[in-house]
Amino acid sequence: MEEIHEYIDDHWMEAVEDLKRFCRQPGISAQGTGIDESVEFLVELMREYGIQTEVLPGEGFPFIYGELPGESRVTLLFYNHYDVQPPEPLELWSTPPFEPTVYDGNLRARGVSDDKGDIVARLLAIRAYLEKRGTLPVSVKFIIEGEEEIGSPHVAAFVEKHHDLLHADACIWECGGVNWKNQPVIHLGLKGMLYVQLEARGASTDLHSSMATVVPNPAWRLTWALNSIKDLDENIRIEGFYDDVRPPADEERRLIDSISLDEEETRQALSLDRFVRGVTGFEYKARHILEPTCNICGLDSGYTGPGSKTVLPNVARAKIDFRLVPDQRYDDILARLRRHLDSNGFEDILIDPQTEGENPARTPLDSPFVSVVAEAAREVYGLDPVLVPSMAGSGPMYSFAHTLRLPTALIGVAYPGSSPHAPDEHIRLADFVLNAKHIAAVLQNMTSYRQASGKPQGVP
Amino acid sequence: MEEIHEYIDDHWMEAVEDLKRFCRQPGISAQGTGIDESVEFLVELMREYGIQTEVLPGEGFPFIYGELPGESRVTLLFYNHYDVQPPEPLELWSTPPFEPTVYDGNLRARGVSDDKGDIVARLLAIRAYLEKRGTLPVSVKFIIEGEEEIGSPHVAAFVEKHHDLLHADACIWECGGVNWKNQPVIHLGLKGMLYVQLEARGASTDLHSSMATVVPNPAWRLTWALNSIKDLDENIRIEGFYDDVRPPADEERRLIDSISLDEEETRQALSLDRFVRGVTGFEYKARHILEPTCNICGLDSGYTGPGSKTVLPNVARAKIDFRLVPDQRYDDILARLRRHLDSNGFEDILIDPQTEGENPARTPLDSPFVSVVAEAAREVYGLDPVLVPSMAGSGPMYSFAHTLRLPTALIGVAYPGSSPHAPDEHIRLADFVLNAKHIAAVLQNMTSYRQASGKPQGVP
Repeated sequence: MEEIHEYIDDHWMEAVEDLKRFCRQPGISAQGTGIDESVEFLVELMREYGIQTEVLPGEGFPFIYGELPGESRVTLLFYNHYDVQPPEPLELWSTPPFEPTVYDGNLRARGVSDDKGDIVARLLAIRAYLEKRGTLPVSVKFIIEGEEEIGSPHVAAFVEKHHDLLHADACIWECGGVNWKNQPVIHLGLKGMLYVQLEARGASTDLHSSMATVVPNPAWRLTWALNSIKDLDENIRIEGFYDDVRPPADEERRLIDSISLDEEETRQALSLDRFVRGVTGFEYKARHILEPTCNICGLDSGYTGPGSKTVLPNVARAKIDFRLVPDQRYDDILARLRRHLDSNGFEDILIDPQTEGENPARTPLDSPFVSVVAEAAREVYGLDPVLVPSMAGSGPMYSFAHTLRLPTALIGVAYPGSSPHAPDEHIRLADFVLNAKHIAAVLQNMTSYRQASGKPQGVP
Repeated sequence: MEEIHEYIDDHWMEAVEDLKRFCRQPGISAQGTGIDESVEFLVELMREYGIQTEVLPGEGFPFIYGELPGESRVTLLFYNHYDVQPPEPLELWSTPPFEPTVYDGNLRARGVSDDKGDIVARLLAIRAYLEKRGTLPVSVKFIIEGEEEIGSPHVAAFVEKHHDLLHADACIWECGGVNWKNQPVIHLGLKGMLYVQLEARGASTDLHSSMATVVPNPAWRLTWALNSIKDLDENIRIEGFYDDVRPPADEERRLIDSISLDEEETRQALSLDRFVRGVTGFEYKARHILEPTCNICGLDSGYTGPGSKTVLPNVARAKIDFRLVPDQRYDDILARLRRHLDSNGFEDILIDPQTEGENPARTPLDSPFVSVVAEAAREVYGLDPVLVPSMAGSGPMYSFAHTLRLPTALIGVAYPGSSPHAPDEHIRLADFVLNAKHIAAVLQNMTSYRQASGKPQGVP
């Protein structure tokens, strides 16, 4: 392994140049801009790094597939995305978001932490093997989508269709890195997502508010419907909503108890008196990592400008996201939401799903793959990694963990100050180098994976 | 009287030319445009009609005061306003809103029905007396404000300050006219108004919605607070909210029972299945005329654009109007709202009044002035007028009815199709002529007013 790490030490600056070139490609899925150029660039880059790469058109923006057989037929699949968040508000960037800038040992650009840095770190690790040994210790595959930042609407169908092509033994996800103490963090799950718009309709037109005596107001209807969904104590009142929430295993509870989530720092940074329900300590962490949510993302009705306008609006809308946890299913929650509204007298409230849903997924803590990734972290960082059962965010991991039955771990080049999705997104170059070495170590340690486990480790 | 009505018949077209000139002055209080020009024009016009007129600056846009002593010292006060609603959306007007257009016996222009037509009809009635008799049967005063369309924030203080100047025996308000059956309608009251913005605040910034596990969401706080204010059955839950609502007198109930409010036409025009609580018939009318409301005018929080954005907003706002009825008081309701929120655990919800409040007012049905105005209507229209205890809308009548103790009646040049506040606002010229004659008849009948009542008739 030593020669691999030395290669990375000697050549990471060249990879950073490639990363900068990559970050000059906008590729903004939400706005549909720069997609083709990003695909073309990345395919070319992956080929430069020795990966056999092709573009697989799907229903939405294209998927990029890459593979490189290694000495062993044990196969590691990398999940990534080439799209980035919109850069707005532009005026808050210190340098233009698509002009990558190195400063103080950091690299600033839109997408550099989420997740172009991850992709190039993976490529660097592979090149190190190819240059020093001429081959990889295990086989690798890449699946890189272009719609992660808009909810990955086509991943599930793509994975179903390309089930055989994507066959592998384990999956390394994008996203993540180290914590404020520079400990490597390995997340083992992602929450699911159901995103809906609720709409209440009233009269055929907005009216003078003196008609509020007799004309139903959809803003009130919406208020009452929302109130029925979640109560003041943050209990989600949809019948059966919690039925499939998996109780935390003892090991998960132990793990959560041991990790630090910067609770007090977060509270102060957000100028909050307290968190919901006043949770602190273990409760705070367990709630954040393990619990589903029902969150109002937006409310809109009637007059919202300055001062007063006496209007009775004829439509009111709420956008809501539900973050789901194992073993909830988004289609089941959607059906339950409809039944809830109907049985509470809100048949008139329309439900309009705004994205394809995502199911939650978690890799079991006792999966041998978790040991592989954790041991590789220990070797590279010289520290015990922090294992976290799930991120609080969402992603299409379910297709990989359940459809492909792949144990999945999330590691990356970011640190807690990276500001993904925000102005001045950046990574620390040292994190990039260490993550490339971590990937290299995972590839090496995967050689013993099949022996250790006897068979590919899926998810129950 | 005959010569007076003949004069009006012979000369109304000249008055309509003056009305058209008046309607060429925008005078939009909400936008602060054209105010000075409107004041200048109207002062000049009133002087042309023989009224002694002056401008009385107030805290906001100026008031216009006019007076003309008549044969009797009995004095009728006219309340009007020279400001108009903004004309937008301009593209929905058949002709430009400030280019008055006669078509099919109608006159179309912004402000022509609300309330410039009322003002000029009053001037025409006065000119008829001056031309035919050289004097008025009773004395008249005019008070014309420039902020009616933005909630009359300075009327109360102005009336307090100019109490003596405005001394009179009765008041004719602007607004109103005939119903779909061409019966003259006399409204005898206006509702009050409390307009507030409720604001809930959360973290110091918008957050990724994965933080909804632990960070309070102000959109939920607002939803729960609103829900506590009014329940699904339209009961306003603020303690004591209904305490001062005056139960309808038998005579009011009888009156309401006898009038028609075009209930079915309204339901169909608005494409409604039913009205709130399913009210029909007497209940529908009584609710519309006599009941207070709590109406959501606007809701605003977080992301309200197309598609999805997973955001946890840091602020949520609702604009609410309360229409108040005798004997509710807006300052009392505001204090009760604060207490309600506090005692329901919503100390965090901010209340920001968006306008100066207005108290409700109604003239008692047995006031002799009501007989004067009703009898004049019978003489002119040849029909029994429809007496309505109150409009569903609001205005600063309280200052006149209570501070000045003036019995007050609302009559005007409009008909139900006039579209005040909307594109293609217009009046029918025949209504203008009949209203001028009605005003003339009121002036004549006021000569017997003092004798009949023995003393000026205020409001209890």
